[in-house]
Amino acid sequence: SGVSRPMKQTKELPYVGDVMNRDVVTVGENISVPEAARVIVGSRFDHLPVVSDDGKLMGIITTWDISKAVANGNISRVSEIMTRRVYTATPDEPIELAARTMDIHSISALPVVDKDNRVIGMITSNDLSRLFAGRRSI
Amino acid sequence: SGVSRPMKQTKELPYVGDVMNRDVVTVGENISVPEAARVIVGSRFDHLPVVSDDGKLMGIITTWDISKAVANGNISRVSEIMTRRVYTATPDEPIELAARTMDIHSISALPVVDKDNRVIGMITSNDLSRLFAGRRSI
Ligand SMILES: C[S@@+](CC[C@H](N)C(=O)[O-])C[C@H]1O[C@@H](n2cnc3c(N)ncnc32)[C@H](O)[C@@H]1O
Repeated sequence: SGVSRPMKQTKELPYVGDVMNRDVVTVGENISVPEAARVIVGSRFDHLPVVSDDGKLMGIITTWDISKAVANGNISRVSEIMTRRVYTATPDEPIELAARTMDIHSISALPVVDKDNRVIGMITSNDLSRLFAGRRSI
Repeated sequence: SGVSRPMKQTKELPYVGDVMNRDVVTVGENISVPEAARVIVGSRFDHLPVVSDDGKLMGIITTWDISKAVANGNISRVSEIMTRRVYTATPDEPIELAARTMDIHSISALPVVDKDNRVIGMITSNDLSRLFAGRRSI
């Protein structure tokens, strides 16, 4: 209703850099899980990149990891529960590639990194699914 | 690479019922938060619908809510932390509408309900973003 775009119009898919969120919060690996939970709950994301003192990506902690810690009754440090093998995207990558990375690994967000592995953004499946809102065809 | 689909081909968007997951796990509101965390961690979803004894949707608890409980140091019962105003989808609804509901409310999944408010599936932003994997245009 109210959508004036023709049904069959198509558009090249954008790049990760066009869609990513730039206001990403990161933490160091030595904070506690409750501290990380406070940071996540205060952010718009389910995913919190963990970085070294010089800003390089070291891991990721998610609300799922925190829930797993609750399930196991083991609420410790971020370094003990974070995932160290992080799948990432780059800003010059087409979003279809980021979508495929998320799909293959069943994850819902990727930190976007520069050539030095510093976190410069985040792209989520919410961002991609948002591209459908208001469309009639793919 | 290897994609033979012409760049400009389009397709009507599918309906929620075509894309939704049918293997949804639900819980009752009287279980503890660690029990809910165990159910979520054992499932493929971040979102766990909470239902009454007769299967009607009463609320939703997510890994985000569990993380908030950790942040607040208050790990209690599901009934105390679940969200009671649940946004839902129906199977005959176009996915663009479900995408819009998720976008407006900054959530990443919707329980799919039948006419009696019973949970028959779940649709997630992962499912929608997956539709982009392998595409070149929207
Ligand atoms: C604003 S979201 C952000 C985190 C995450 N993306 C998510 O969907 O839960 C977090 C809050 O949304 C609530 N929520 C998630 N899905 C919902 C739905 N379908 N209807 C109503 N509330 C929902 C959760 O219970 C939680 O309190």
